[in-house]
Amino acid sequence: MTSKQSPTARAGAWLAAFGDALEAGDIAAAVDRFQDDCYWRDLLSFTWNVKTLEGKDDVAAMLRATLADARPGAWAIEGEATENGGAVEAWFTFETAAARGRGHLRLKDGLCWTLLTTMTELKGHEERTGENRINGVRHGAEKGRRNWLERKTADEAELGHSRQPYCLIIGGGQGGIALGARLRRLGVPTIIVEQNARPGDSWRNRYRSLVLHDPVWYDHMPYLPFPDDWPVFTPKDKFGDWLEMYAKVMELNYWGSTECLGASYDAAAAEWTVTVNRDGTETTLRPRQLVFATGAYGYPKDIKFPGAEAFTGATLHTSAYVGGEAFAGKTCIVIGSGSSGHDVAADLWEHGADVTMVQRASTVVVRSETLMELGFADLYSEPAVQRGITTEMADLLFASMPFRLMPSTQIPLHEEIAKRDAAFYERLGAAGFRYDFGEDGAGLMAKALRTASGYYIDVGASGLIADGEIKLKSGVGIAGIGERSVRFDDGTELPADVIIHATGYGSMDEMVARLISPEVADKVGRFWGYGSGTNGDPGPWEGELRNMWKPTNQEALWFHGGNLALSRHYSLYVSLQIKARMENIPTPVHGLPPAAAR
Amino acid sequence: MTSKQSPTARAGAWLAAFGDALEAGDIAAAVDRFQDDCYWRDLLSFTWNVKTLEGKDDVAAMLRATLADARPGAWAIEGEATENGGAVEAWFTFETAAARGRGHLRLKDGLCWTLLTTMTELKGHEERTGENRINGVRHGAEKGRRNWLERKTADEAELGHSRQPYCLIIGGGQGGIALGARLRRLGVPTIIVEQNARPGDSWRNRYRSLVLHDPVWYDHMPYLPFPDDWPVFTPKDKFGDWLEMYAKVMELNYWGSTECLGASYDAAAAEWTVTVNRDGTETTLRPRQLVFATGAYGYPKDIKFPGAEAFTGATLHTSAYVGGEAFAGKTCIVIGSGSSGHDVAADLWEHGADVTMVQRASTVVVRSETLMELGFADLYSEPAVQRGITTEMADLLFASMPFRLMPSTQIPLHEEIAKRDAAFYERLGAAGFRYDFGEDGAGLMAKALRTASGYYIDVGASGLIADGEIKLKSGVGIAGIGERSVRFDDGTELPADVIIHATGYGSMDEMVARLISPEVADKVGRFWGYGSGTNGDPGPWEGELRNMWKPTNQEALWFHGGNLALSRHYSLYVSLQIKARMENIPTPVHGLPPAAAR
Repeated sequence: MTSKQSPTARAGAWLAAFGDALEAGDIAAAVDRFQDDCYWRDLLSFTWNVKTLEGKDDVAAMLRATLADARPGAWAIEGEATENGGAVEAWFTFETAAARGRGHLRLKDGLCWTLLTTMTELKGHEERTGENRINGVRHGAEKGRRNWLERKTADEAELGHSRQPYCLIIGGGQGGIALGARLRRLGVPTIIVEQNARPGDSWRNRYRSLVLHDPVWYDHMPYLPFPDDWPVFTPKDKFGDWLEMYAKVMELNYWGSTECLGASYDAAAAEWTVTVNRDGTETTLRPRQLVFATGAYGYPKDIKFPGAEAFTGATLHTSAYVGGEAFAGKTCIVIGSGSSGHDVAADLWEHGADVTMVQRASTVVVRSETLMELGFADLYSEPAVQRGITTEMADLLFASMPFRLMPSTQIPLHEEIAKRDAAFYERLGAAGFRYDFGEDGAGLMAKALRTASGYYIDVGASGLIADGEIKLKSGVGIAGIGERSVRFDDGTELPADVIIHATGYGSMDEMVARLISPEVADKVGRFWGYGSGTNGDPGPWEGELRNMWKPTNQEALWFHGGNLALSRHYSLYVSLQIKARMENIPTPVHGLPPAAAR
Repeated sequence: MTSKQSPTARAGAWLAAFGDALEAGDIAAAVDRFQDDCYWRDLLSFTWNVKTLEGKDDVAAMLRATLADARPGAWAIEGEATENGGAVEAWFTFETAAARGRGHLRLKDGLCWTLLTTMTELKGHEERTGENRINGVRHGAEKGRRNWLERKTADEAELGHSRQPYCLIIGGGQGGIALGARLRRLGVPTIIVEQNARPGDSWRNRYRSLVLHDPVWYDHMPYLPFPDDWPVFTPKDKFGDWLEMYAKVMELNYWGSTECLGASYDAAAAEWTVTVNRDGTETTLRPRQLVFATGAYGYPKDIKFPGAEAFTGATLHTSAYVGGEAFAGKTCIVIGSGSSGHDVAADLWEHGADVTMVQRASTVVVRSETLMELGFADLYSEPAVQRGITTEMADLLFASMPFRLMPSTQIPLHEEIAKRDAAFYERLGAAGFRYDFGEDGAGLMAKALRTASGYYIDVGASGLIADGEIKLKSGVGIAGIGERSVRFDDGTELPADVIIHATGYGSMDEMVARLISPEVADKVGRFWGYGSGTNGDPGPWEGELRNMWKPTNQEALWFHGGNLALSRHYSLYVSLQIKARMENIPTPVHGLPPAAAR
């Protein structure tokens, strides 16, 4: 029977056998369906966690812990499976006791190599879309009824005052807004507090030349994709306007001009006490769940160099840099060679400043055009859209590749990049710029996930460096600051009217320590990175980003963030975890790691 | 060969023969491919007009006038044809010398019964979408370059001052905004002027209980459909917020708080002089094209009844009615039984007023639920979406049915409605309400297209009338107004604290007469209606709505409007006509009718 040999038939047979073994509670038989070198990434469905199991023993242990509660079933291949380079790939759907899910499967020699299981919706708590959408009006007549605006206005006036939100999100950038939109659809009363006045201001307030470095296909917000003429690279103010409109039409409870002053958790009451200053008025909120969506970073990192206090010029961090108008004709030293260092140096040059970039450490640089063609094209591009790869599918395909396997795809990609752009790298190196592709050659995406720093997607600054238009001081440390100069540890000195710290940001744990307590920050531990053991991302190996989008060692405390794609995708899982807790659905968490020292 | 007999093959054969005949310039052969009883509706492709040809002679005359310029070709069936009730239906694409097009075909016995040809884009002036979208940033470095916001701010400051818009749209409701968005994509410099301060205010300012009477699937704006949880019936303020956000993210040049004071055309200079008052400052604009998008209506119709000046209560038109709060306990007379009369009467009742509706003429009433199920389900509904009917396809299918054939589908539909809701109509009749389905039984949609008045989609008020909660005075005229009462021509009199004129609106020609001149208003003639010969829509037969979305007898003067669906769909054709003129593409218009006396 030829159909037996089609990829779809083979995937279907695997899934049926796997499902039968799970239904029979036969964990050994289920594990037998995996290769020795296997990876099962689960986003909530089994583990109520964001978790990658590596190898059969891990899989068996996870199933022993979760199978009785999860009660999975209804496994069904979705669409047609394909065969690529010896691996059969298939989409599937399934259910657990609590939820519906979608997954992705890669088979080698009839056995599972990678498995992705993700939760898509909670049974009985589905979003009201399509034919289940609300009506918007109750037909018929009703004395004293209020219209939409009156109900909305009353609801906004009550929430946070006479009625407490179930969830409070600190930070109203794309992360907080995406999560807020999902919680809104799930009927979770939520307030977002944001220091800036309006949604989008966190982008508007950045330096004037900022444009999203990732392309439009990667950047959609949930539910409301950009229209089909949206530019490939969104200018910051245009993106700010989009976020502002998005927050409005999604009907988010967005408290602008609101600073969070402090938070503490009462475990007995299972409730947070959070003090906020809203436009000058202090208010105490008592949410059940607290989410930090302040970005993957902490506070701007201002490094205190010896002698800095006597400097007579201007010193600022890139987070405070708006534009180069004021710096025309000035001698500017930009300390740092990451994304903001490059962008700010180029903006200063465009405004006629004399710019020197101080490169303290080797940097991953990839040309935007090349990254678009080689890095994004498969999943997030117009050709991908044409091939039927929806944003949701792209997100799941990206999620289906475990961190352990990332170097195996990223190293060849960056070898190809190095080859294709050899002339570019040669010019950059000749100018004295130190570039690399990461300790293990896994390149830009790996760097972003490991340390969220030390890389630049070149949109023009590298050319200025290669041409000497932006001067470079590389391979030296800073010895101290003079009255109007910067001194280096090789004995040289450069004059400086302006010193710009492109020194990045601290870690989110600083915010936790300041807003909650150092004890809670210690209990929760490090953020970001997955224990790759590379510089800036020490082990032990975790295989998932630390503390992101999943339960932490502090009850009812969550961390949400990342770039636009990660914020979009993982906001789904954060929202489902919070909704499940609100509905008292059991959420036994498997595999909560001990906190990594911060 | 069986494929010869498939609907697709038959449609393909017809299209090939038709295309060959046109290519050969053999009009007789082309016309031979039509039934005697045939209809060809053309939206710009051949006629640069919105035009229905009826019968072979009309078709032949049109082809004789247009074929040499249009030079059509590249006819190709799109997707699979279907067969329904003896008619083969197919989609197709084609090109003309100037443009690309999409069409729809119905064959009976191998000959064409209905043909729709529509222009979709001008060659060389395509919208920049998908892989042709703009980049959003010029990579590389450039001294003195401005960012998106700086360019946008400068552009807004110049347009209408140091640089003239090519097109001026008067009226910033959904019609002006939809057209503005299309012109923006086509690169036509455009200003929209609107009396209200913000986009969406024309909805926000209406009576508090207003909710769109058409369902969400019918109401999408171009390019940016509502998200999939949008309510079936959008509350007015929510829709106002959507329009405001839409105008912002589409980057329209929207001049709020701006009144148009007057306009005149200089034929020699091919230019309008339009005076506007923008927030207290008078400005003169000199656009090449002027569009009225002030709605299908003119000014509110206030009828002067004898004795009205001595009335000691309150009198207002529904356009000024905001909500019933002030009228609790008052005796209110609502004069008129159209949509706003019903909505306002129900809102007054909900606020505890004593309400009597005065019905001056028989009214078409259809229950919303029934209309949704029988009227909208085929084209604009969740099941239609599931069947793959996109909004664009639904719009084209609706457009493919010529007005002449409308009664043949609408009469049976309304017979079914009458049967299904017999109990409803019996109760309504028993209360004294006079209802009908139009002179010829063609019902609600026909009434909307013929006179844009005299109908109500029941969302609750009819039940109140049937129950006597809203009292009814029907079949009488108004003899006069007393000091605190309304007198009827049957000699009866009713006390009144408040008289509300739900008397509708005048015609758009009043606006033309006031803002341009009575001469131009006379030259242009009547609006709306297609010459059905029914009450309020006198002949001669035109087969298309008068003066809407197409060239008028006044050069460079356009009228755009209609409900959300018509505004969405026909804004495409208005934008293409204006863009073609801006680019000096020849636009020979076929079949401009003489103005119908206004």
